[in-house]
Amino acid sequence: MIIDLRSDTVTKPTLEMKQAMWEAEVGDDVFGDDPTVKALQEKAAAMFGMEEALFCSSGTMTNQLAIRVHTQPGSDVICDQNSHIYLYEGGGIMLNAFSSVKLLSGDKGRISAAQVKEAISPADDIHATVTRLVSLENTMNKGGGCYYDFQEVKEIRKVCLDHGIPLHLDGARLFNALVETGETPQQYGAVFESISICLSKGLGCPVGSLLLGTRQMIAKARRFRKVMGGGWRQAGFLAAAGIYALDHHVDRLKEDHIRAREIGNILKSKPEVQEIFPIDTNIVIVRLVPEMPAVDFINQLAAKGILAVTFGKGLIRFVSHLDFTDNHLQEMRKRLLF
Amino acid sequence: MIIDLRSDTVTKPTLEMKQAMWEAEVGDDVFGDDPTVKALQEKAAAMFGMEEALFCSSGTMTNQLAIRVHTQPGSDVICDQNSHIYLYEGGGIMLNAFSSVKLLSGDKGRISAAQVKEAISPADDIHATVTRLVSLENTMNKGGGCYYDFQEVKEIRKVCLDHGIPLHLDGARLFNALVETGETPQQYGAVFESISICLSKGLGCPVGSLLLGTRQMIAKARRFRKVMGGGWRQAGFLAAAGIYALDHHVDRLKEDHIRAREIGNILKSKPEVQEIFPIDTNIVIVRLVPEMPAVDFINQLAAKGILAVTFGKGLIRFVSHLDFTDNHLQEMRKRLLF
Amino acid sequence: MIIDLRSDTVTKPTLEMKQAMWEAEVGDDVFGDDPTVKALQEKAAAMFGMEEALFCSSGTMTNQLAIRVHTQPGSDVICDQNSHIYLYEGGGIMLNAFSSVKLLSGDKGRISAAQVKEAISPADDIHATVTRLVSLENTMNKGGGCYYDFQEVKEIRKVCLDHGIPLHLDGARLFNALVETGETPQQYGAVFESISICLSKGLGCPVGSLLLGTRQMIAKARRFRKVMGGGWRQAGFLAAAGIYALDHHVDRLKEDHIRAREIGNILKSKPEVQEIFPIDTNIVIVRLVPEMPAVDFINQLAAKGILAVTFGKGLIRFVSHLDFTDNHLQEMRKRLLF
Amino acid sequence: MIIDLRSDTVTKPTLEMKQAMWEAEVGDDVFGDDPTVKALQEKAAAMFGMEEALFCSSGTMTNQLAIRVHTQPGSDVICDQNSHIYLYEGGGIMLNAFSSVKLLSGDKGRISAAQVKEAISPADDIHATVTRLVSLENTMNKGGGCYYDFQEVKEIRKVCLDHGIPLHLDGARLFNALVETGETPQQYGAVFESISICLSKGLGCPVGSLLLGTRQMIAKARRFRKVMGGGWRQAGFLAAAGIYALDHHVDRLKEDHIRAREIGNILKSKPEVQEIFPIDTNIVIVRLVPEMPAVDFINQLAAKGILAVTFGKGLIRFVSHLDFTDNHLQEMRKRLLF
Repeated sequence: MIIDLRSDTVTKPTLEMKQAMWEAEVGDDVFGDDPTVKALQEKAAAMFGMEEALFCSSGTMTNQLAIRVHTQPGSDVICDQNSHIYLYEGGGIMLNAFSSVKLLSGDKGRISAAQVKEAISPADDIHATVTRLVSLENTMNKGGGCYYDFQEVKEIRKVCLDHGIPLHLDGARLFNALVETGETPQQYGAVFESISICLSKGLGCPVGSLLLGTRQMIAKARRFRKVMGGGWRQAGFLAAAGIYALDHHVDRLKEDHIRAREIGNILKSKPEVQEIFPIDTNIVIVRLVPEMPAVDFINQLAAKGILAVTFGKGLIRFVSHLDFTDNHLQEMRKRLLF
Repeated sequence: MIIDLRSDTVTKPTLEMKQAMWEAEVGDDVFGDDPTVKALQEKAAAMFGMEEALFCSSGTMTNQLAIRVHTQPGSDVICDQNSHIYLYEGGGIMLNAFSSVKLLSGDKGRISAAQVKEAISPADDIHATVTRLVSLENTMNKGGGCYYDFQEVKEIRKVCLDHGIPLHLDGARLFNALVETGETPQQYGAVFESISICLSKGLGCPVGSLLLGTRQMIAKARRFRKVMGGGWRQAGFLAAAGIYALDHHVDRLKEDHIRAREIGNILKSKPEVQEIFPIDTNIVIVRLVPEMPAVDFINQLAAKGILAVTFGKGLIRFVSHLDFTDNHLQEMRKRLLF
Repeated sequence: MIIDLRSDTVTKPTLEMKQAMWEAEVGDDVFGDDPTVKALQEKAAAMFGMEEALFCSSGTMTNQLAIRVHTQPGSDVICDQNSHIYLYEGGGIMLNAFSSVKLLSGDKGRISAAQVKEAISPADDIHATVTRLVSLENTMNKGGGCYYDFQEVKEIRKVCLDHGIPLHLDGARLFNALVETGETPQQYGAVFESISICLSKGLGCPVGSLLLGTRQMIAKARRFRKVMGGGWRQAGFLAAAGIYALDHHVDRLKEDHIRAREIGNILKSKPEVQEIFPIDTNIVIVRLVPEMPAVDFINQLAAKGILAVTFGKGLIRFVSHLDFTDNHLQEMRKRLLF
Repeated sequence: MIIDLRSDTVTKPTLEMKQAMWEAEVGDDVFGDDPTVKALQEKAAAMFGMEEALFCSSGTMTNQLAIRVHTQPGSDVICDQNSHIYLYEGGGIMLNAFSSVKLLSGDKGRISAAQVKEAISPADDIHATVTRLVSLENTMNKGGGCYYDFQEVKEIRKVCLDHGIPLHLDGARLFNALVETGETPQQYGAVFESISICLSKGLGCPVGSLLLGTRQMIAKARRFRKVMGGGWRQAGFLAAAGIYALDHHVDRLKEDHIRAREIGNILKSKPEVQEIFPIDTNIVIVRLVPEMPAVDFINQLAAKGILAVTFGKGLIRFVSHLDFTDNHLQEMRKRLLF
């Protein structure tokens, strides 16, 4: 039995989810004819109280669409220096949106309203880029799955409104935050111009992300999706999985969080582990002692059938998910502690 | 019963294809772990005798990846003025690849070696762009599904080799050409640097296209796919449909061609139709008499449950496909002729 | 004595122009401190009845700035297939503005209102680019220096207004048209959103072009000029030449036109010349007989101290200018006819 | 008498420099016919022992050309977080070169070989950009005109060579460093793939910068210069100033440095000044006490006829230059201290 903790993207659909996929009514989504895609989009928009949603193949696509729509060539985007949109999307801010970055150093990736305010470019200096977007990530992947205090989000929103700058949320794992804080999708929908959420991470779908925004924004995003090659025909099979996940896989994310903390408990007794980041959701980041190269530790784990990934200098990341059960946890404990 | 001839993209998977999807073994393709995606890619590469293939969500994506990989900012791409890459991909040559176009006026979209040769930019003129790609489309959508004489393709190839310029094929409907001409995928694989083929058109898959090329080229394409948001996780469900289609849906394209000619026979007796383009494969383009506005004709057809699309000034396009059976043909004849 | 008819850009400042340059008061234009640059910009804006002008190093820069300001990524620009902005600016429409082209086949480069109207992209088709600019060139370089009927310009303007699309003029040689037609800069200023004029062509300045437009448009152009590296410090020396030229070198363009017609008279007696394009201003394009390769003809002329350039297949271009006097004309006649 | 210390770009040509401009032999540089431009380019290339040079209108243009030539879309450029190419060139790294940034926190802007080494992107991770350029700035503007230890430059060069990454120098004020360290242009030419130097800063020219590199690199840069609108016709007038400056204005930079230290001496006695950065060359940066807003201090100075610029939070920059004489220094002392 392989215990795969590399990411919550590795899950395979449950039998029930596959059943929903099998039964999906589909059509050609490029002609606007796929009823299941439309149903998913409407369901998500309603959940967040936003006007429209667009079903896409990845969170990179939904984030990049938002960045493209909100910016113009010569803009800058304010975000944390460890944010996914800057580090892990192939330089898309620059390559897709021809925009620069203002990189903040947040608290484990959570930037503050004060930082945002100071980073906004002066309006009338032609040497500088023009700030046209602020982007948050919640939960914050590189911050060990930590989440924002919603009060701070609202403060950032205020700064943005004062300066006429839209606010985007990379909510790839937003539901992991919501099940902990008790805030609702509607509360988030009310303070962001656009939100990206992933169905293929904790929610367990095979493929898919959603971009949420205004009607006008989604219309523009649809054009950019076309030129990025993101149109898909009978995507309803995948959308059906998304509908199933939104109905059945949100609340259970709490179980992943409990198991993540158990993973932390197992790891903290290992002498190779120097420090464990606070475990707020389903991500466990550990810092190894300097004598232990991260690649070697990964290989030692792999030899025991446990998969994780390196995550920057001396760091290792484990992610709990739908396919990581108590059984797997038990087995992991056995393999690592005895 | 709706008779949907808007495109061969409207087909829904057969029960057998769905069964193949249900049984697919999947994994996280971003980690390189989806065995079905890998099997499809290897199968396609082998069919064409090319080094590698990349499974993507659309033909626009595979075409655009090829253009991005072959060009550099400030290039130009030689293609027909009616080619899909220029007309229907949202300006991606310019927006994705920062390249200009040299638009040729081919014979129903089929450009010649002589035209290509004359269009190549002078090497040492800094006012001009640098020709870095020639792209053909086969069959040619806007040319009524006509196909290339392979001899001409080889002549074009020769011009390209003489000038060190790669040759790309938008082969969205290449198999429709091959079943008519008897040429093989390998013959095509031998004369193009890259080929894009669509699984979701005549082959009947719900979603997916393949980009074929060298190992090095596909490695670069994989990077650009990432930044375009084209990565997908458990895409094996869709890849399984692709494998099934390559095994079972290629030869049957001939049936679509026969039915397309029958569609032509039905339409030629209509007084609103002035001219029918030669029907070489599965596409039927008719020119209406000047008195009949295209939109009105489309609406009249729709009122009879027959769907087609306008296709430029005074032109209407019908496309036969897997879900258009003899039964539908019979019904169409009945509705239009009696 | 070399008779240089390659372009009207080869002129050197007259003594009087140099004197104006010597006496120029200068300052750091990046700080907005160069009084001569400001004076030139204000003078030009007033001449055309437009809000503001921006002094730049080349007509390519002023054209490209206009295109960048008027478009957004994913636009298309409607222009003649032989226009300078498409053929001779290094692919800048695509590379600077991420926009595609709709290439019309005008009457010697002069496009019509009807052609423009038909070329505008449908508003709601995500496969297509969005038309965001129409660009005219007057006089038309590749059309042998022909000029527009102002009535047609106004018709084009009307189409643009109807569709909310700005209209740009590449007026590199606009003054050559105006001295023939008697129209005024103000008349032109009233029907274009932006106009580019060159000081370094017929007007005889060493370096410089002007972009004219609204205050807001020029403010945006100033930002793009910065990122293109087009800022310059004590540019007042060059601006002084521009002021001198606008005061003293406009009306005399008629002399260049008379001499251009004389060049035509000389050339029409040469057996190598098959056809001479109508000579409307200062450009003479001749088509050689098929037996005479253009490069050979250029070389034969050069051997006699007469310089011209090839200008497409079998075509040669001669341009008259400030440094081509009656004396040169006499000498040219002698060298070619006796 | 205005004492203008906003920048060393505010200087006006001396009478001798103007004389050189007056006497310049010029031609059409776009045709390669300007002998003075060619002479300047050859002189500069020889000084640095590099193959070729290109004369451009600004340092932003020469830097951006280098970045465009060295990178490809999807690259990243390693530089200090306060470097001119990132902060003051309108986002050109992203907008011109479609590349991302890796921003290091150097010692007053001077980055180290160790920092560079750690910042290079992993070669095989498609989520990341590809490091294709390292760029240094010397002297470092935002670092108060400090300069690199040449030993560290050579260490950085070594890291670059090990990874096959070119090394660019923004040497806008390189000569200010060289007159202090005694190193030669040739020593610098030997360790950089490209160098940008400005003639319009300390060297006192009205307009112009030079890009130095290999023949092949400059040929590519010439193309990008065209599309950026950077071609200029009879630029020899400006080039003549450049030749004069390289002959007569390099050694005298030491005087500017002495006067800069005197400026520091004057300012350090002002109660509004909390701290003065070490004064290594011709730039003086002072930090004001928190109670004194930078804009107010600038205005107070201006009221006394002394001009400076704000330079980030609580910082003011003064720059000494060719037009700031002992006389001005005396006057400045009088106005500020008595």
